Amino acid sequence: MSVTDPVGFTAAGATAGLKPSGRPDLAVVHNTGPEDSAAAVFTGNRFPAAPVTVSRAHAADGHLRAVVLNSGGANACTGEQGLDDARAMAAATGAALGLPADAVAVCSTGLIGQLIDLRLVGPGIASAARALAADGGPAAAEAIMTTDTVPKQARAGRDGWSIGGMAKGAGMLAPGLATMLVVLTTDASVPPDALAAALQTACRVTFDRADSDGCMSTNDTVIALANGASGIVPDPGVFATALTEVCADLARQLIADAEGASHEIAITVVNAASEDEAVTAARAVARSNLFKCAVFGNDPNWGRVLSALGTTDVAFSPEDVDVSFNKITVCRGGAIGEDRALVDLSGRSVEVGVDLRAGSSTATVLTNDLTYDYVKENAEYST
Amino acid sequence: MSVTDPVGFTAAGATAGLKPSGRPDLAVVHNTGPEDSAAAVFTGNRFPAAPVTVSRAHAADGHLRAVVLNSGGANACTGEQGLDDARAMAAATGAALGLPADAVAVCSTGLIGQLIDLRLVGPGIASAARALAADGGPAAAEAIMTTDTVPKQARAGRDGWSIGGMAKGAGMLAPGLATMLVVLTTDASVPPDALAAALQTACRVTFDRADSDGCMSTNDTVIALANGASGIVPDPGVFATALTEVCADLARQLIADAEGASHEIAITVVNAASEDEAVTAARAVARSNLFKCAVFGNDPNWGRVLSALGTTDVAFSPEDVDVSFNKITVCRGGAIGEDRALVDLSGRSVEVGVDLRAGSSTATVLTNDLTYDYVKENAEYST
Repeated sequence: MSVTDPVGFTAAGATAGLKPSGRPDLAVVHNTGPEDSAAAVFTGNRFPAAPVTVSRAHAADGHLRAVVLNSGGANACTGEQGLDDARAMAAATGAALGLPADAVAVCSTGLIGQLIDLRLVGPGIASAARALAADGGPAAAEAIMTTDTVPKQARAGRDGWSIGGMAKGAGMLAPGLATMLVVLTTDASVPPDALAAALQTACRVTFDRADSDGCMSTNDTVIALANGASGIVPDPGVFATALTEVCADLARQLIADAEGASHEIAITVVNAASEDEAVTAARAVARSNLFKCAVFGNDPNWGRVLSALGTTDVAFSPEDVDVSFNKITVCRGGAIGEDRALVDLSGRSVEVGVDLRAGSSTATVLTNDLTYDYVKENAEYST
Repeated sequence: MSVTDPVGFTAAGATAGLKPSGRPDLAVVHNTGPEDSAAAVFTGNRFPAAPVTVSRAHAADGHLRAVVLNSGGANACTGEQGLDDARAMAAATGAALGLPADAVAVCSTGLIGQLIDLRLVGPGIASAARALAADGGPAAAEAIMTTDTVPKQARAGRDGWSIGGMAKGAGMLAPGLATMLVVLTTDASVPPDALAAALQTACRVTFDRADSDGCMSTNDTVIALANGASGIVPDPGVFATALTEVCADLARQLIADAEGASHEIAITVVNAASEDEAVTAARAVARSNLFKCAVFGNDPNWGRVLSALGTTDVAFSPEDVDVSFNKITVCRGGAIGEDRALVDLSGRSVEVGVDLRAGSSTATVLTNDLTYDYVKENAEYST
């Protein structure tokens, strides 16, 4: 159930002292297997953090041996000094593990616009490198937490090989994404191109559809490492399915632990003209603050769903649209449907259904409600 | 300072009983002057409320004599019955004033997805019609309030003629807009086409750039009535400037009274490649929940400004962008600038400056912070 479940990976968490709380804040994942395929997906933000720029360069050849991750500082919008610092983190990790710097990816999370204190990170890396162990996955998952309240880990096993994963991310969580950091490991033998293809497939229907607060981070990174230690070359379709399982599991965990949330909301759009339009429609609802506040108030306010849908250019006729909350069709044909009093939103899990009657495509976007605690956490985050 | 300031307009507020609070909830504005030019701008939402559909039809010929407005129910997403009800409101108002139904525009605001109780509205209209008075503007402005805490009125005077205005709107406030209802009156003589052109000009740089919560309403309506009672035909440019003044004043009042807000925020983007790009960049910041929470926490979190800008395709080089909070340039060249501790955000008014260094165009978007009270009001609104 961690990045060290697959054979031939070690990991560790350490305390470098970047977090005022004194909690663990530095993690290393090391691939010790026979192969070193790697693939990565990064934020689409035009202000990519320094570690994103460095990791993109290091992963470009499809090979990585290790990932070093820190919480307690995003090293984003930090200029040339930030780039030097991210490169220094890769070099220090490489030195500790006997690897070239460009075999190491770097991930950082925390406040934007502050330099990382390398005097703390250097000893932290050395300490984590010494602690690397075949059962170190859970410690690594804990060291990358920021406002996360629980570590996120997942696993999928198949005949003789497995995939492990860890993730962090609780705010600024949207496609592209959200100081969302994910490391995926597998002992299957998968060449870089196939790994990249499977990762794209998996991200498209999982992390790209987890939209907690519509805010795109400067640091989002998803890295997959494959070492072939199992000696098994899986069927590409089977591998992509297993990878998607792990990513979907981690995405659900991210949404379930999003900052201040009191409801997990799955918005499923059916009968859209295309899958892209289904995603666009669902995402418009997921980003409506009024809708999100209504769910916080246990209010099946379908008018706010329609008003969000009405801002899109997705194909539908307004008089054909149905909306349901937890299976009760409170809006039928763009107007009043069943009694909203029949809807019970007191549980954490809320299912919103939208039928566009404009085609046959479906997509689900995951989001959260907008709560006092979300505001509190994000008003106080840097102070 | 009201819609009855210009000569030849009467108005009234009445209590129809639509609001559980028993506060006034019905207003009528009547043009009794020699001319009846009218222009209107409506929500771009694809689920326009019934009164929007009816008013659009009635205003299509450039002539209106009266506007009837109710709070306590939006009559949106109410199907054929809703359309019948909106038409009945126009007819009842016309009957009370001796006008054909299509000389009357209808505006409604309140909860989406509930039918209006015509048994209450009918007597309310009769009562308002009896109360119409040349000093009735303030009573009308009060009767259209929903979660507004104060009525919004404005005025601009020129040589021998004037413009008066009233507005309501406190949530779902964004371009397109936000159960934002506005009535503008003038005793200048302005033909329908010129009135429509001036209204478009004025809305483009005022209401269209007031973006409290990114949510587009189903009911937004801005109606301008010109009756020529002053006998003066103003220069079109002078008229448009005066109308823009009144709209800008009302837009500021809307933002200052937005639901739960503790800060009014003006985001000004300078040196953009075009005015549209300046608006796009400013709006991206205005819609970032994380940015808005930071301002609530008095935190000049420029990283959240950059991360919002980084999601747009507006022309700029990341290493050229400066960001200031209340004139302190906390971000310079996309990286750390002056000490954020120098910024004081304890006042209600916050000025965020963004220099893109990509051209010479400027635009300002007004917004609010995201607060506990916004969540509270919108979680409890319909319950």
